[in-house]
Amino acid sequence: MQTTDISAAQQAMADESVKRLAMICWSNDLDKVWPTLILATTGAASGLEVDVFFTFWGLRVLQKNNKRFTGKNWMQKGESFVDRGGTDHLKLGKIHFAGMGTWMIRKLAKQYKVASPTELLEMALECGVRLHPCQMTMDLYGLSPEDFIDGLQPTLGAASFIDMAAKADITLFI
Amino acid sequence: MQTTDISAAQQAMADESVKRLAMICWSNDLDKVWPTLILATTGAASGLEVDVFFTFWGLRVLQKNNKRFTGKNWMQKGESFVDRGGTDHLKLGKIHFAGMGTWMIRKLAKQYKVASPTELLEMALECGVRLHPCQMTMDLYGLSPEDFIDGLQPTLGAASFIDMAAKADITLFI
Amino acid sequence: MQTTDISAAQQAMADESVKRLAMICWSNDLDKVWPTLILATTGAASGLEVDVFFTFWGLRVLQKNNKRFTGKNWMQKGESFVDRGGTDHLKLGKIHFAGMGTWMIRKLAKQYKVASPTELLEMALECGVRLHPCQMTMDLYGLSPEDFIDGLQPTLGAASFIDMAAKADITLFI
Repeated sequence: MQTTDISAAQQAMADESVKRLAMICWSNDLDKVWPTLILATTGAASGLEVDVFFTFWGLRVLQKNNKRFTGKNWMQKGESFVDRGGTDHLKLGKIHFAGMGTWMIRKLAKQYKVASPTELLEMALECGVRLHPCQMTMDLYGLSPEDFIDGLQPTLGAASFIDMAAKADITLFI
Repeated sequence: MQTTDISAAQQAMADESVKRLAMICWSNDLDKVWPTLILATTGAASGLEVDVFFTFWGLRVLQKNNKRFTGKNWMQKGESFVDRGGTDHLKLGKIHFAGMGTWMIRKLAKQYKVASPTELLEMALECGVRLHPCQMTMDLYGLSPEDFIDGLQPTLGAASFIDMAAKADITLFI
Repeated sequence: MQTTDISAAQQAMADESVKRLAMICWSNDLDKVWPTLILATTGAASGLEVDVFFTFWGLRVLQKNNKRFTGKNWMQKGESFVDRGGTDHLKLGKIHFAGMGTWMIRKLAKQYKVASPTELLEMALECGVRLHPCQMTMDLYGLSPEDFIDGLQPTLGAASFIDMAAKADITLFI
C-alpha cells in the first residue's frame, strides 16, 4: 500500500515538474496572433505543455486560407467577408500608413527571417501545441468543422479552458 | 500544540485546494467584456474564487445603465458622453460594417442563446464573483458610488489587486 | 552533506516565498502602458520581483524621448515617424474626441496626481523592476542600443521570457 502511495506521489511530482502554458487567442489581428504563435512554439520547444484556446475573433485564425465565405445566414456570411479567416489574411490591429502597415511588417519580418503566422501555426502543430476551437464562437460564426485546418483538438467551452488554465504555470489573454 | 499545528496545516491545504481566478477588466469594449464575464461566471460555477478588478475604460462596465452623464468637471462629463457607461451600451472595439457590427453580434448572440453582458453581470454577482472598482480610475472619471450598480466590493488600488493576483492560479489582463 | 541539503532546501523555500510578476508590454498605447507601469512599480513596492518584456509596439516605450527618427531602412524610418517612441509621446489606443482624448487624460491624471508614464518608468528602474527589450523586435525596427534609455537589462528572446514567466506567480499580457 505504502509503495503505491509513494509512487503515486512521485507520479504527481513528475506531472508537477512539467510546466504548462495556457493562452487565450482572442484576436485575429496580425500583431496579436504573431506573439501568440511565437510564445506557443517557443514554449513547446522549451518543453512546456501548451494549450491555446481560440475564441471570438481569434477563431478566424484556425480557418483554411482558401475559404472565402463562411457562415449559415447573411449576417455570418457578411462578417466572414469583412473579417476573412486564415493566417494568410491577418491584418494589423493598428491602422496606419494608409494600409501599408500590414504589408510592411510582413516584408520586414521576411527580411529578418521571422516565421510567418502560417509557418508558425504549422510548427505549433508539429511541436504538439494543442489548438482548441471555441464551440460558442463556432456557433456564432456559423462555422463547420470543414472550415478549419487539420490537426485541431475537439471544440471546447469556457469551463474546460478554465480547468486547463488552473493547472497552468503561465496564463495569458492575448 | 501539535494538534493545532496539524489542523492549521490542514486548513492551509484546504485553502490551497480552492483555485482562484484574478482578472483585470481594463476595457469596456463589448468584445472584451463578454469573455471577461463569461470566464468570471464559468469560473465561479466551476468552484473557483473569482476576483475582477475594473480599471481604466473597464470601470465604465460597472455603471448603472440609466446614467447618461457622469463626472464633476467638463472633461469628465465629456468623456462620459462619448464613452457611455453600463453593460447595455458597450460597443465593439473593432469598427466595421459602418457600425452594424455591434448590433449584429448582439443579435447573433441572442439567436444562439449567449447571455448578454447585462445578464452575465447579474449572474456574476449571484455566483459570488467579487467585482472591485479601481479607486484611481473613479477619481479620474469623477465618478461617485451612486453611479454604480449594487453589490460591488469596496474600491481598490493596484497594491491590493497585486496581493489577490499573487494568490491566484489564473491571472488575466483583458 | 545533510546540512547542505537542508540549507539548499531552505534557500529554495526562501526563493519560493518571494512572489514574482512577469508581464509582456506589447502595446505602446498610453492607456496600456499606464497600467503596465503602475502594476510594475506597485508590484516592486510590495516586495515582488518584477520582470517586464517589451516586445512589438511595446518596445517603443523604452526609446529615448528626444529621438525623432530611428531605423536603418526607409520602412523602419517611416514606421518610427508614424509611431514615435518614448514615454512622452504615447497616445491613447482609442481615438475619440478628435484627438483631444490623449491630452485630456494626461491633464486629468496630472490634476489627480497620477504619475506620468515617464515618471513611472524612472520609478520602475529605481525600484529594481527589470526591463527587458525584445531582440527580435529590435531587429525588425532597426533599433540600436543608443536609441534606448539607460538602465535596461540585456535584450531577450521569447524562450528566456517563457523561463521567467514559468517561475512567476502573476503573468500578464498587456
